[in-house]
Formats: sequence, C-alpha cells, structure tokens
Amino acid sequence: MSAYHPLTESEAIEIARSLKNVFQGAPDNLACREIGDGNLNLVFHISDPASGRSVILKQALPYAKVVGESWPLTLDRARIESEALIQEGKLAPGLVPQVYAYDAELALTIMEDLSDHVIMRRGLMEGGRYPKFADDISTFLAHTLFFTSDLGMNQQEKKLRVRDFINPELCKITEDLIFDDPYTVSVNNNYDAAIEDEAEALRADEELHFEVALLREKFLTQTQSLLHGDLHTGSIFITPESTKVIDPEFAYYGPAGFDIGAVIGNLLLNFASRRGWDKSDSDADDYRQYLLTTIRDTWNQFESKFRALWDEHGVDRLASASAAYRDDYMKRLLQDTFGYAGAKMVRRVVGLAHVADIDRIEDPVRREAAQRLALAIGKSLIKSGRQATSVEQLIDIALTAVAGAKA
Amino acid sequence: MSAYHPLTESEAIEIARSLKNVFQGAPDNLACREIGDGNLNLVFHISDPASGRSVILKQALPYAKVVGESWPLTLDRARIESEALIQEGKLAPGLVPQVYAYDAELALTIMEDLSDHVIMRRGLMEGGRYPKFADDISTFLAHTLFFTSDLGMNQQEKKLRVRDFINPELCKITEDLIFDDPYTVSVNNNYDAAIEDEAEALRADEELHFEVALLREKFLTQTQSLLHGDLHTGSIFITPESTKVIDPEFAYYGPAGFDIGAVIGNLLLNFASRRGWDKSDSDADDYRQYLLTTIRDTWNQFESKFRALWDEHGVDRLASASAAYRDDYMKRLLQDTFGYAGAKMVRRVVGLAHVADIDRIEDPVRREAAQRLALAIGKSLIKSGRQATSVEQLIDIALTAVAGAKA
Repeated sequence: MSAYHPLTESEAIEIARSLKNVFQGAPDNLACREIGDGNLNLVFHISDPASGRSVILKQALPYAKVVGESWPLTLDRARIESEALIQEGKLAPGLVPQVYAYDAELALTIMEDLSDHVIMRRGLMEGGRYPKFADDISTFLAHTLFFTSDLGMNQQEKKLRVRDFINPELCKITEDLIFDDPYTVSVNNNYDAAIEDEAEALRADEELHFEVALLREKFLTQTQSLLHGDLHTGSIFITPESTKVIDPEFAYYGPAGFDIGAVIGNLLLNFASRRGWDKSDSDADDYRQYLLTTIRDTWNQFESKFRALWDEHGVDRLASASAAYRDDYMKRLLQDTFGYAGAKMVRRVVGLAHVADIDRIEDPVRREAAQRLALAIGKSLIKSGRQATSVEQLIDIALTAVAGAKA
Repeated sequence: MSAYHPLTESEAIEIARSLKNVFQGAPDNLACREIGDGNLNLVFHISDPASGRSVILKQALPYAKVVGESWPLTLDRARIESEALIQEGKLAPGLVPQVYAYDAELALTIMEDLSDHVIMRRGLMEGGRYPKFADDISTFLAHTLFFTSDLGMNQQEKKLRVRDFINPELCKITEDLIFDDPYTVSVNNNYDAAIEDEAEALRADEELHFEVALLREKFLTQTQSLLHGDLHTGSIFITPESTKVIDPEFAYYGPAGFDIGAVIGNLLLNFASRRGWDKSDSDADDYRQYLLTTIRDTWNQFESKFRALWDEHGVDRLASASAAYRDDYMKRLLQDTFGYAGAKMVRRVVGLAHVADIDRIEDPVRREAAQRLALAIGKSLIKSGRQATSVEQLIDIALTAVAGAKA
C-alpha cells in the first residue's frame, strides 16, 4: 500500500480481505459502508454476508472539521489511539475493542466491530439501564489508571511511556475548550441567549477561576497515569451485558481523576437532562436515582479495586509502606474527580461542543432548565472539590441542585 | 572523527585546535590536562600558552564508578546536559558556562573554561563570602523555572521539551538515593555507627514517611519546569563577582521547588557543619548568620523575580488572571522548597553520597554533632513543609535546631 492518502471503499475492502485473523480465506463479496461522521476520521464497516463476520477500519484524516472550518490535525493521533487501545486491552481485557492491525503510514487501525452495541449517551437518553456498567467501568478505570502509574509499573519504563504519549495537539483542545474558554469571552463558546446571565456569572466568578486554574495546572503538569483523555458517554459502546471503551485519541499521561470525572460528569449531564426525556417528574426522579446509584457504585468499586491492585501489585516501596499516604492518594483522586466532573459539565453547556442529552431537548424551557441545572451542579463540584472526602457529597450536590431548581 | 570511544589527550587537543571560535588560528602547542575524577566523565582542560585562551572538553563515559563498581549509564545524559546548558544559557545569560560545540556521537560538550572560579562547596567550607550569589542564583532559578513552565512558554512546545528531557536513568538515582533508601534498610546507605539511633529513627518515623512519599510522588509526576536536577553547591562555580551553574546532566521536567530546595538544603548542610570549620562558636554563629541571610535573600529575590516575570511574560490567561492562584502557586513553591531542602539534607547524612562540608570534619565529635544537626533541620523542614507560609519559618527551624543542639 502506498503512502498516506484517504482510503477509498474498494481499497478498504482490499485491506480487509487480507485479514486472516478475521475473515476465513479471502471472501469475494465483502460489503462496505463508510459510517464515520467525516469530521475527524473515515470509518469503514466491512462485513462478509456469507460468514456474518465483520470488522471496522478506522483511518485518521489530517484535519478536523470544526464549526465548518478545516483545522489541520496530526495523524500521530492514530498512533496514539492505536497504542492506547492496545495498552488498555492488555490492562482491562474485554473492555475495549480488539485491535487486529495498525498501519502507521496510513494512520489506520483495524478493530473489532461493535455494531451490536449502542453509544451509551444515546442509550441513557432513551432510558436504558446497564446493570454491568459500574462494575465494568470501575474495572477499566482501576486497571488502566493503576497499572500505568508509578504505583503499578516500573518507574523508568513509565517515563518512556510518558514520552510516547506526548500529545500536544489533542491536549490543546482540552486545555482551551474545558479549562479556559468557558470562563472568558471566546469565539469558541456557544450557548443560548437565554442563559447569558449564567455565562456572565462564569466569567465573573473569581473563586471559580481559582479552582479551574488549579485543575488546569494539574492537567498541564501531572503525569500520574495514562488517561483515555475523553471518556464521555459518547466514547462508550454498551449493552446490558457488555461495556466497550472506544476512541482514546486524546490519550496522554495526566491526572487520573480527569478520566473518572469525565465518566461521572457525563452521567450527571444526563441526570440534569431527565425532564427533557422522561414522561413525568416521577419517572425523571426514578431514572436520576438509577444514575446516582451508578455513580456511587462506580466510585466505590473503583476505589476498592484500585486499593486491591495497590495491595497486590504496588511497586513503590515507600508509597505502599505508608497507610496515611495511601488514604491521602485516594482522597486526592476523589477530589480531582469532583473538580474534573464539574469542569466537564460546565464546558458542555457554554463551551464549543455540547452533549445531545441536553441540546436535543426540544422544549426550550426544559432545555434551559437542564442547562441551568447542569451548571449549578458543575460549579458546585468545582468549588467543593478540594474539600471532598466522600462520593456521598457528590450525590448530595446533585440532589440539592435539583431541589433548588424545583423551588 | 569516528564513532564513540573515550578520547585520548592527543585527540582532545586535535578537536580543540579546530575551534575557530575559541583559539585564533590553529595553535601548535596546546597544553592538555585531564582533570575529571574519572567517575562519570573525562574532562580535558586545554589551553594555549601563547594567547592564554583555554577551553573545557567534557566527554561522558558509558558507566559510572560507584562504590568501586562499574554501573552502566546512558551516554544520552551528555545530550541532556548539553541541551540543558544551552537552554539555561539563553534564559539566564552569563550564569552557566558558554557551550562552544556539542558532538552527539562522541557524547562530547566543549565549553567555557571556568578555572578562575572555585567550587562553591569548597569556597563555603573555607569561609568564603559571595555577595553576588543570592542575586545570581535567584535570577538563574526564576528565569529557568519560569520560562520553561506552562506559565512562561507555549504550552504545546513545552510538551515537546518534556519529551526531549525524559531522563529515566538519572532520575532513578535521585528516586532511590533521596526518596527511598534513607528511610529503609538499604545497601546504598552509608553512615557512621555513632548515628545508628538516627538512622533507626528515620526508618521508624511514619509521619516522615508520609511526607517523603508525597515529595517522591511529585518528583515522579509533576512536569512543572525544566530542572537542573542536581543543584547543590558542588554544581556551582563561584567568585565574589561571578556565579556559574554547571553539570545539568540530571535535567528533566519536575517540580520547581526541587531545584530551589537543593540550593537551600546545601547551604543548610554547610550551616550544620560550621563548628567543624570555624575557630570559635562566635565565628560559627557569624558565618551561620551570613548563610541564613543568603538563604533569605535567595528565596525573597527568587519570589519577587518570578512574580515580575509572570506579570510581564505570563502566557496562561487563566493562571495570570487569578490573583488567588498566583499567591497559591508561590506558596506551594515555598512549601516544596522546604520539603526538598529537607530531603536533600537527610540523604547527605545517611544515604550513599555525602557532602564534604560534613564528611571532612576531622574531629569525630564535631562531625557527629554536624550530622545530628543536619538531620534535625532536614526532618523538621520535611515535616513542616506543607504548612509553610514564609521563608522566615525555615530560618527559625535552623536556629531552633542549633539552640536545641547547644542545650
């Protein structure tokens, strides 16, 4: 295959035919659909009608189309995504799509087809319940965040991994869109005129700016663990029996609480949106309880799994020897989780990229109420983060915000 | 010149002759002395008797001789040292030796000869006073630590610099010898039997272990600024009129307070040693006051220069916008300085590598008193670090330890 160029469907089929570990023989009649949204990547779904087997070919494009413009973007993100998927697959088997092949020159990853799963954001909007999710995502988080940290891997080898996952372009997106734009006047921001008062309040709140500056600093400087880096509910394929984390192109070494916060913040964005989706207050309250239970279980199971891994596989003598240090480490992970969950919520209401949970609520009154509720929870999480000692405080913040909104 | 091999004197002379920017023409009669200690590097001093010009050729050896053994060590440290010297020279002109040339294949750096300076550790032991030192070293620290941080440079470019300065082998030396061995039974430790009680106390002190674990974590994970990484008084050439920081082979992106703490911790090691060097208690007290004034000036001038650079050259909108964040950042730098100064002191008494300030005191009673005083100050700095709010508290800790020792 020649040097980089966007693949045609026939080229994609040709590559797929040669995959001995997916298709048996080299079937003649492979079907191909390009199912990417065309923004960042080409995504070819290729299937063999005879055997029923299928595969995904994901190829990075050398630009991002954002707000209608073409924005050059390094193809190195395909390497990072592929290497992160392979790492995550080793550390959390079964919780990411299997990678069959990677072609650096073509920026092409060939992986397991997950068409039988749905995107979790869509599933939550439709009121789906996923009884295995808290267990699965807490395993994913505990294993990937522990075994890539200085607690769980050779510390010299880790430095080489930090080097491999230096990811300036994708990190810049996060730095700008999450940790800067929502707190100032920026052309990147995007919100309804109805909540101009909220946007103004974000720009004027010095206490909030101080806390966001601390979160930003940690995102810029703390190489704690290999992060997924964009672990929202749109990066999770799900069924009631299975959870698959996808799309780690933002992967880099950062603060572990950023990934945990991303999961919880996105569950809370759905929490804030329920009156746009459920038929009654009672149904909304019921689903909110399900979401809060999921959040509580996610944190508690994460903490207990992470501690168990530390007990069994800790490689840092001093860190493992000090019980006070272990407790302090877990407390700081929780505090970071509060802060990053909050920052993720705020940016999804006033920043460039929103979430369908809220944006697709048709009734403008209910949409605005969801936006205000998400902001209230997000700001409270950011401000309370450094004093947090229990996930129950996060639950209280969410319930208090709902009560305040109803008052 | 062929691939890597340790240079002979005649090869070193041949290379030096070709340096158009040092020697005029190609002088015939260059004198050469190999002045390295043979442990890590060859160091050739090459001079032209006719013109009086001279130059240093420093070549890394592919091993370190430690406690009699040969310990393989990457030649990449020569690249890191050379690149760090060049960076530091741009950011703090005149405060490091000028680099004339660097040969990657030979792991060879050719630089300014500083034979007219003395090693600061030696100068302090002999009671020298350096009125420009606090001003110079605070400039070096403020400029190198600010302009390599996310506060003072492009944040995407900074990530590439973090990648260039990944330095696993040299970092491991620090991680083991400073942040682990002194707090456990280790073959690397080295101390007089007379202070076995002190060593035992270090191994049993859980409060201390907790604080050291936090300092260790920050050293392992915080890419705040490009550090010198080994900024003790043996890495500083000095005269009353001039200060030159040398030997940044431990350079990597780490917590800024580690460099500031290294300077202050080494001044305090000399502080602890004074009764071994001065003729009377009164002379020792007088020199200690000089050292404490130097420490106070170093911190205060560092803080005011760092803040001034931030005001004028800050590139992080949010970090610069929040006055509370700026104050908090400076407070955390001070707290890290306490902790790392203390950790540096403890390791120099019970760890593998000691300092001449204390080890070369001939009278065993005075040597032991100096060791105990250094440990008392070091432990107190480590334990008080996270509550520190002023450099005066550090001065108080040193004076209180002296008073306690006299009691």
